[in-house]
Amino acid sequence: MTTLPYDSAQFERNAQAIVDAGRDLSMLGWTPATSSNFSMRLGDGLAAVTVSGRDKGKLGLDDIMVVDFENRPVATSARPSAEVALHTQIYRRFPQVGAVLHTHSRAQSVASRLFANAGGVRFEGWELQKAISGHDTHESVLDLPVFPNTQDMQVLVDQIDTWLDSGKPLHGYLIDGHGIYAWGVDMAEARRHLEAFEFLLNCELDLRSFSP
Amino acid sequence: MTTLPYDSAQFERNAQAIVDAGRDLSMLGWTPATSSNFSMRLGDGLAAVTVSGRDKGKLGLDDIMVVDFENRPVATSARPSAEVALHTQIYRRFPQVGAVLHTHSRAQSVASRLFANAGGVRFEGWELQKAISGHDTHESVLDLPVFPNTQDMQVLVDQIDTWLDSGKPLHGYLIDGHGIYAWGVDMAEARRHLEAFEFLLNCELDLRSFSP
Amino acid sequence: MTTLPYDSAQFERNAQAIVDAGRDLSMLGWTPATSSNFSMRLGDGLAAVTVSGRDKGKLGLDDIMVVDFENRPVATSARPSAEVALHTQIYRRFPQVGAVLHTHSRAQSVASRLFANAGGVRFEGWELQKAISGHDTHESVLDLPVFPNTQDMQVLVDQIDTWLDSGKPLHGYLIDGHGIYAWGVDMAEARRHLEAFEFLLNCELDLRSFSP
Amino acid sequence: MTTLPYDSAQFERNAQAIVDAGRDLSMLGWTPATSSNFSMRLGDGLAAVTVSGRDKGKLGLDDIMVVDFENRPVATSARPSAEVALHTQIYRRFPQVGAVLHTHSRAQSVASRLFANAGGVRFEGWELQKAISGHDTHESVLDLPVFPNTQDMQVLVDQIDTWLDSGKPLHGYLIDGHGIYAWGVDMAEARRHLEAFEFLLNCELDLRSFSP
Repeated sequence: MTTLPYDSAQFERNAQAIVDAGRDLSMLGWTPATSSNFSMRLGDGLAAVTVSGRDKGKLGLDDIMVVDFENRPVATSARPSAEVALHTQIYRRFPQVGAVLHTHSRAQSVASRLFANAGGVRFEGWELQKAISGHDTHESVLDLPVFPNTQDMQVLVDQIDTWLDSGKPLHGYLIDGHGIYAWGVDMAEARRHLEAFEFLLNCELDLRSFSP
Repeated sequence: MTTLPYDSAQFERNAQAIVDAGRDLSMLGWTPATSSNFSMRLGDGLAAVTVSGRDKGKLGLDDIMVVDFENRPVATSARPSAEVALHTQIYRRFPQVGAVLHTHSRAQSVASRLFANAGGVRFEGWELQKAISGHDTHESVLDLPVFPNTQDMQVLVDQIDTWLDSGKPLHGYLIDGHGIYAWGVDMAEARRHLEAFEFLLNCELDLRSFSP
Repeated sequence: MTTLPYDSAQFERNAQAIVDAGRDLSMLGWTPATSSNFSMRLGDGLAAVTVSGRDKGKLGLDDIMVVDFENRPVATSARPSAEVALHTQIYRRFPQVGAVLHTHSRAQSVASRLFANAGGVRFEGWELQKAISGHDTHESVLDLPVFPNTQDMQVLVDQIDTWLDSGKPLHGYLIDGHGIYAWGVDMAEARRHLEAFEFLLNCELDLRSFSP
Repeated sequence: MTTLPYDSAQFERNAQAIVDAGRDLSMLGWTPATSSNFSMRLGDGLAAVTVSGRDKGKLGLDDIMVVDFENRPVATSARPSAEVALHTQIYRRFPQVGAVLHTHSRAQSVASRLFANAGGVRFEGWELQKAISGHDTHESVLDLPVFPNTQDMQVLVDQIDTWLDSGKPLHGYLIDGHGIYAWGVDMAEARRHLEAFEFLLNCELDLRSFSP
């Protein structure tokens, strides 16, 4: 009998929360064509993550695996998404973060292209900015950077490390032509942050389209 | 055994109507990221309201509390939303009103920004204006004011009191960058009014976008 | 015991088909704020129609009543919608028609405003035109007229009679700022026609918005 | 007792997969007004296809029939869609293809009109291009041709044969004013490809609408 290097009851709770999030976010159309991936911190130096290539609306517990923070599978022969390095980076850099969500909605993809040259989207004057933890008023400024896309995960990881090392605040980010990463202390907060960014991106796109 | 200052059977009926409204309005995407709040009048000088910060699509009866019209919690340690003052104001000013709904749809938020400078949206020529009680023809004019946003609830309350004291009709209102308040004699009418305003706002935004 | 002037089994089948249509069309958002009304022919000179003011997504058999073709309630004290005259007109003028649907979608309302001055919408080059009975190719032309809105039903009825008396084809029509009327030999065809018009209107609006 | 020229257990599995796809794609609004058709390869030289004219959201196993690759019904008196020739062409030309999907979403229809003059849509820089088998990076180019519409199926078949004979890659195609054809080695891949094209078309339309 194998001894797992993590608490299997905690793994099951995390996996269930990921399955639930996948079903809900898929129904919103934010995970087209088996894209997107989700994770939760699992004790010390580990994370539960979605296996590569599955339909995110129909996940089962078997579609969730464990990796360490060097992105190596733990006690499984399954293969994680190539993008898992972006999840473990967030867990390493933010000890308080418990869940990371990456989705591909239409607004996320389109906004990432439209705002790539500007380097990001600046939200001002929206009450919903208060849904991001630490933001207590619509009078604050909320920045969501857009990083260039690449199939080389290490280049993406380095870009984000450079941003964080420079001391700039980071509550989520877009990748050009790709999608969004958002996170929170637990799955509920991560989902609230993701929902708020999606809403704010749609509002900015609408304003752009309706403004003369 | 404590005697509650309200009829607990009526409270439960109200709370259930609020739970049902939350589930339906959340499925429409009008309550993103735990925003929005709902209330119903509860006998004399009291209202049942949603507790702050809950997911409005997954409310239970425990997520509904009672406040008096000075916005003080009644027989509970729960905290109401800061915006509860805007609900009790409507109950104080309109004795016939039985339900107040505050939501944050995309059209509500975007229209509030686009029409803030004009001070409001004027609806003319839409058959759906007849869904607002007291409007019998599409040939009437229906005004939905936009008030400036602030985190100071008293300032908001004063703005709306000033509007009402000047004798102008008020069937609902937008707050800039924020969302809508709508109400009715009961939950069914409040929901019909909210649905009609959402529809009319979308139509006005569409007309603006499609017009050359 | 009263003898009803219609077959009550047929009434129940018709009423159920109307209830089902109401639930489905309401879920699509085409019946906002208790708007819209539906009917089916019921034997000789009678029609089953929705009672005024009900939520079309939550109809029960009790929300369906019978009228004759002079729009008088039959064997009921319920009140039909004022617009019932537009339903009975179609049954009188088209003996083969078995079902009439009137809805208020956003595209129907917005298109009615945008195309009111032109007097109607002309569809050309869409494969979906073939969904309208009698249209076998996308190379035909399909006209959907827009009639001016009025609260006086007799004026509306006269407008439509004039159109038909002039021999022009009529497969459905919009009323300015209001919504659409569509019909078919049975409920299935009426729904297919309504769905096709909604789709075609959205496509025309999109083309207008995306074209430079 | 008749001996069927195919494995009836395999037919039932295919038919069920088609029924499931119809229900899901219909809920997304991609099969308006009984349009669209679906098929799966069934052993040697045969395909299971949808019967003409049925509501694709409410298919039963009785709504699926078998044709050979000359588009002749096999062991049935049912009539296939006229467009079945476009399905069998794909099975003949691509021996590895197991499922073909034809839908009529709004984005598919509108894009087909907007890009007809250009002869097709070119996708570049979207991460979702990787959802199309054989595309490993967003840096590749993905072309979706638009062919002119005609009611003469042989003309359509010839157009597509000419494209393929010229050696150009084909992962799916639009027909002007009509809809999309997409396919894959099995139903899961065909659905992933269809979902990816729909997403990418919407993104291109959005970019066009939001760009100054």
